[in-house]
Amino acid sequence: MRPYVFINAAMSADGKISAYTRKQVSISGDHDLRRVDQLKCGADAVMVGIGTVLSDDPSLTVKREEFRKKRLNSGKDENPVRIVADSLAKTPVDADILRKGNGRRIILVSESAPSGRVDGLRAAGAEIITAGENQVDLTAALEQLYDMGVRRLMVEGGGTLNWGLITQRLVDEIYVYIGNLILGGCSSPTLADGTGFPDCENACLLELVSLEPMDAGFVVQWRIK
Amino acid sequence: MRPYVFINAAMSADGKISAYTRKQVSISGDHDLRRVDQLKCGADAVMVGIGTVLSDDPSLTVKREEFRKKRLNSGKDENPVRIVADSLAKTPVDADILRKGNGRRIILVSESAPSGRVDGLRAAGAEIITAGENQVDLTAALEQLYDMGVRRLMVEGGGTLNWGLITQRLVDEIYVYIGNLILGGCSSPTLADGTGFPDCENACLLELVSLEPMDAGFVVQWRIK
Repeated sequence: MRPYVFINAAMSADGKISAYTRKQVSISGDHDLRRVDQLKCGADAVMVGIGTVLSDDPSLTVKREEFRKKRLNSGKDENPVRIVADSLAKTPVDADILRKGNGRRIILVSESAPSGRVDGLRAAGAEIITAGENQVDLTAALEQLYDMGVRRLMVEGGGTLNWGLITQRLVDEIYVYIGNLILGGCSSPTLADGTGFPDCENACLLELVSLEPMDAGFVVQWRIK
Repeated sequence: MRPYVFINAAMSADGKISAYTRKQVSISGDHDLRRVDQLKCGADAVMVGIGTVLSDDPSLTVKREEFRKKRLNSGKDENPVRIVADSLAKTPVDADILRKGNGRRIILVSESAPSGRVDGLRAAGAEIITAGENQVDLTAALEQLYDMGVRRLMVEGGGTLNWGLITQRLVDEIYVYIGNLILGGCSSPTLADGTGFPDCENACLLELVSLEPMDAGFVVQWRIK
């Protein structure tokens, strides 16, 4: 048993979720940011990979007061549980995800994570889930999250975490905002990085659920087959 | 003066035009293949980069008889002029683009291309345009193509040629078929590779022209701003 998992991402028209500089980029617009905030409001937990923490330092909080109130009114924490997939416990103890907003934080680490760093994260208020020898065992970690009550898990990237989840068949749905720009770059991060599938026969198949123009781009909703 | 240039590409939902193996992949379906053939029918020339010739060996001919007849009836060659951007003249003399179908072929080379190879390509029936010292100077080459009568140029990739044209502001329109699959891979070719733009401020901005579901995916038409 694992949570229902959906990836949300914004990418350029050529599939990049960031420039080769890994600087945070603004690909979508106001309507899309509201859509993302609403998705986050409806999730039990929101997860990112350590690469995203180190390059973007996101707080992953619910941004709009109306959505925070909605959560509080239904007896939930203001923010969903915030989770980092972080095999070697590299999350800085002063990361925004640990400092900003109310609610639980969970760091998923592997058995290879240095105990000093793990203790530091615990002292900074994070709960720790250990799964996997050198890399976080995502399947096992998701089972533990389910046991902790997480039923709806939103994944906000980056490309390495998305790939890990997709290749292990742990994703149910993908929302992609496609923005009106070309970023280019053979080393720029994409929606799904990692090794990749060798051909179409082995690729992860999707079903198109919806397609909606938004801001200067559009939103695609895919269901994993 | 240069031709009107449009890129046509099919990519996975995560922006890959091929798998990391660079094997030819079938991302779109019958309706999209017809759409592409029709676009080709209406073009004066169709261009690819040498990487695409070496990995896919495309003939770039018009596939459907109705479209070939349409071209012949309006006094044109059966196929548009077929062009390879090939700085070092690496196109094999037995490439399908040189062997299959009627019509002119042009290889764009740089001054660094070995003359033996250039002579071989000429002997195989190709015309040669030399522009640029070590790499094809695309701006100069497009001017020469215009002087030769090419008014509407279709570009069929890959990611390196697309990037070169986009970064030199030589593209007017982009058609992208987005297929219902995730290919993944941090080294898989994407719609626009090369160096990439460092951030959104320097990126190539687009305007959404149309969005149409097709086969199991959809087609996006972008105009370059």
